[in-house]
Amino acid sequence: MTVIDLNCDFGESFGAYELGQKEILLYVTSVNIACGFHAGDPLVMRRTVQLAIQHGVAIGAHPGLPDLLGFGRRAMAVSPEEVYAYVVYQIGALAAFVKAEGGVMTHVKPHGALYNMAAKDAALAEAIAKAVRDVDPSLVLYGLSGSELIGAGRAYGLRTASEVFADRTYQADGSLTPRSDARAIIVDENEAVRQVLRMVGEQRVRSVQGTDVSIEADTVCLHGDNEQAVRFAKRLYEALQQEGIAIQALR
Amino acid sequence: MTVIDLNCDFGESFGAYELGQKEILLYVTSVNIACGFHAGDPLVMRRTVQLAIQHGVAIGAHPGLPDLLGFGRRAMAVSPEEVYAYVVYQIGALAAFVKAEGGVMTHVKPHGALYNMAAKDAALAEAIAKAVRDVDPSLVLYGLSGSELIGAGRAYGLRTASEVFADRTYQADGSLTPRSDARAIIVDENEAVRQVLRMVGEQRVRSVQGTDVSIEADTVCLHGDNEQAVRFAKRLYEALQQEGIAIQALR
Amino acid sequence: MTVIDLNCDFGESFGAYELGQKEILLYVTSVNIACGFHAGDPLVMRRTVQLAIQHGVAIGAHPGLPDLLGFGRRAMAVSPEEVYAYVVYQIGALAAFVKAEGGVMTHVKPHGALYNMAAKDAALAEAIAKAVRDVDPSLVLYGLSGSELIGAGRAYGLRTASEVFADRTYQADGSLTPRSDARAIIVDENEAVRQVLRMVGEQRVRSVQGTDVSIEADTVCLHGDNEQAVRFAKRLYEALQQEGIAIQALR
Amino acid sequence: MTVIDLNCDFGESFGAYELGQKEILLYVTSVNIACGFHAGDPLVMRRTVQLAIQHGVAIGAHPGLPDLLGFGRRAMAVSPEEVYAYVVYQIGALAAFVKAEGGVMTHVKPHGALYNMAAKDAALAEAIAKAVRDVDPSLVLYGLSGSELIGAGRAYGLRTASEVFADRTYQADGSLTPRSDARAIIVDENEAVRQVLRMVGEQRVRSVQGTDVSIEADTVCLHGDNEQAVRFAKRLYEALQQEGIAIQALR
Repeated sequence: MTVIDLNCDFGESFGAYELGQKEILLYVTSVNIACGFHAGDPLVMRRTVQLAIQHGVAIGAHPGLPDLLGFGRRAMAVSPEEVYAYVVYQIGALAAFVKAEGGVMTHVKPHGALYNMAAKDAALAEAIAKAVRDVDPSLVLYGLSGSELIGAGRAYGLRTASEVFADRTYQADGSLTPRSDARAIIVDENEAVRQVLRMVGEQRVRSVQGTDVSIEADTVCLHGDNEQAVRFAKRLYEALQQEGIAIQALR
Repeated sequence: MTVIDLNCDFGESFGAYELGQKEILLYVTSVNIACGFHAGDPLVMRRTVQLAIQHGVAIGAHPGLPDLLGFGRRAMAVSPEEVYAYVVYQIGALAAFVKAEGGVMTHVKPHGALYNMAAKDAALAEAIAKAVRDVDPSLVLYGLSGSELIGAGRAYGLRTASEVFADRTYQADGSLTPRSDARAIIVDENEAVRQVLRMVGEQRVRSVQGTDVSIEADTVCLHGDNEQAVRFAKRLYEALQQEGIAIQALR
Repeated sequence: MTVIDLNCDFGESFGAYELGQKEILLYVTSVNIACGFHAGDPLVMRRTVQLAIQHGVAIGAHPGLPDLLGFGRRAMAVSPEEVYAYVVYQIGALAAFVKAEGGVMTHVKPHGALYNMAAKDAALAEAIAKAVRDVDPSLVLYGLSGSELIGAGRAYGLRTASEVFADRTYQADGSLTPRSDARAIIVDENEAVRQVLRMVGEQRVRSVQGTDVSIEADTVCLHGDNEQAVRFAKRLYEALQQEGIAIQALR
Repeated sequence: MTVIDLNCDFGESFGAYELGQKEILLYVTSVNIACGFHAGDPLVMRRTVQLAIQHGVAIGAHPGLPDLLGFGRRAMAVSPEEVYAYVVYQIGALAAFVKAEGGVMTHVKPHGALYNMAAKDAALAEAIAKAVRDVDPSLVLYGLSGSELIGAGRAYGLRTASEVFADRTYQADGSLTPRSDARAIIVDENEAVRQVLRMVGEQRVRSVQGTDVSIEADTVCLHGDNEQAVRFAKRLYEALQQEGIAIQALR
């Protein structure tokens, strides 16, 4: 039976600032919880872990760059040593909440610019994989399908989850179309659903160049930061169910 | 045989800023490592844990208030819920580095204003004790001798370490003389050494009021932020040795 | 003719986090703009100053404690020297945006815990008044009616604006009923409007003890952080107009 | 008569962390004061402005990236809009202290990664020049000799100061030899002094390729963060005096 994990970033509030829709927990099987660098704070992390446990979704750490002002979305010239330490720190902080609440942490997915940098930069990818391995080698490492990060995770003996995107188009080499390209985003929700069904069912995607590309699809990235995103998640969830695809976390 | 632990705060550098003398590691048996809130950063924490392991000193988390600008020394109106979450977060962050380096974390000692508030405020003391218990009940909780924090630690089933100070005078009720009082600090090093020897040997201290006070002394707080402090630590270490007192960590 | 200023805190977004309703600009004559310590960031400040200029509302700096995590609402043991420097810094930062956009800064109102501490602590009140005077003595200092801050402002030769609250009850001595008291908040909007009309028209308020208290009312504090608050602002604005009271900024 | 300005970064302490040697004030004519983003804090800024005024050195703002952890030395993918706002904010904050202390701000020099990015990125250079112009068009803009920043400053009608380095080698095109090149740093102090004397006296420098390059030298960058740097500054100061070169700020 074909299985797929649906994941979304979660726990991105900070202090007095609220972000994210709880309802998304109904349509995902894994959440990536912000750890206080790009978003999240200790109170938010605790509350978020409690919510995740209540909803039975798999809990992952979502480490980001130390850039709250930029929400971790701005590339920074960080060294592998810095990235290693940032990831160890953030995994540990979240792990303590998970333990205190009696849950289990299952995975790690880098956030934003760190995710993007680790997709292409082998040294940073290795730093992340090593950090995960050193803190808890049973954690699954999430990364862009076909990325350096997935390769580094495997090299460090980690179980990996290759991630695909519903609303992004792909290049003939399997990479995401850069956002600078007008075709980068799939606006039509029907098309987004179709792309996911094919990626999950056939492990293939049609590139913007018109060719078919092989792709690994262990998990689909969804968004929970606004109501429209939640509606799309619900729709995708139902479409996958109708196709008889099992929606479940990786562990 | 009489035993005593000597502890000091450590790992208080941040980014480009250096603070602390490594040499103090020769004269203490336990270090309390800053966790990134009042001082410390991920790179510093990693390096500090490595140093502590190399020197064979016991490793503790040193959680503080989220106030890098004030070095965690300024009281803040934080709720027990906030304190609980701050302590869980910081213990977890440090624990990950300790695990990655193959070491063992043994204790937790709150820093600065958090330490002082938890000495007198039962609700904050309980929040800290609960946080330690929820993350790892085998950790020893360090607190001011006779404080609410020590009481809360015991109530939560934790092993506690009652801390005394070499360079501070005591009141007839066993509390520290407030810093606003001119007699608060012991400037004469001979007197400071004598006070420690008596606290350790007899579990008693002469108060500023002239009365003798019973005190629990499991660990002595030393400082490692300047050369003079290190010299005093060396001197106290040697004086304790000469008295035949075993200087060793609590676990 | 009776005149009153209506003010609200504004520009409290930060990075990816949005807070506040722009529509409140239709019903206030002055805004207090967050300066990056408790809320706000440089991009937000620039955008907020532009909005304020477009709407013709008076622009004030809204300095807060350096506690983004607590939104500046938590009391901190800051010294007068620290408060002085924090206020100079924040006024200056906002002043630069106002100058760059061709506007005029008219006032300063401390935020949250800083406002509350400066209402009762004469040394902190003086530090704030001195900071305002040293940076620009033409600025109007906003403070709680009858507070130490208003007194300090006058002592430093500043023009002051005594602030009253629509939704808070008053004690027989003219102070606000503490939030710990069940009667602290006025939930009934009719009652809130009546209280404001009387404070503005007669400079008197009925205390929770049932006595009438003299009060200075130069400006009323409104909120713009949710839709209900904006509706109340609109309603109060219209009620004041119907009473023939001129609604205008202090300068 | 040949004149030269000697400048150094200053006021880089933060909270409990001390950085920098006050003695450097004896050998420079201009200081660039950190504004709280990459270093510095409000108390430090006030104290630093007071020191600068006492020593009669010209005061400049030293805006940096919002990266205290990285001391502003790490490149970040910031937009021109962000850079504009960061620079306005920081100039304003420092300007308030200068005004409060009765001094005069004379210049702006971007720090670290911001300085380096603005040397090559025309859009960021323009954002900085525009920010300076919008806040105070009388400020002198410091930038790397021959850089985009100097060009942008001129395009915005600002007076500029072309900066040269004593301890860095130059390429045949007038750019600095990248630090990745083993020849980037001049270790021999005699050679560093000779290079400065020639750059100041002849406005030329010998490149690592062996050719002579024309260079504009309005100001020399010195360092004040350790005792050796201060000794070199003293030596260079004396060498310039012996050559009959007037050492003075640009105003």
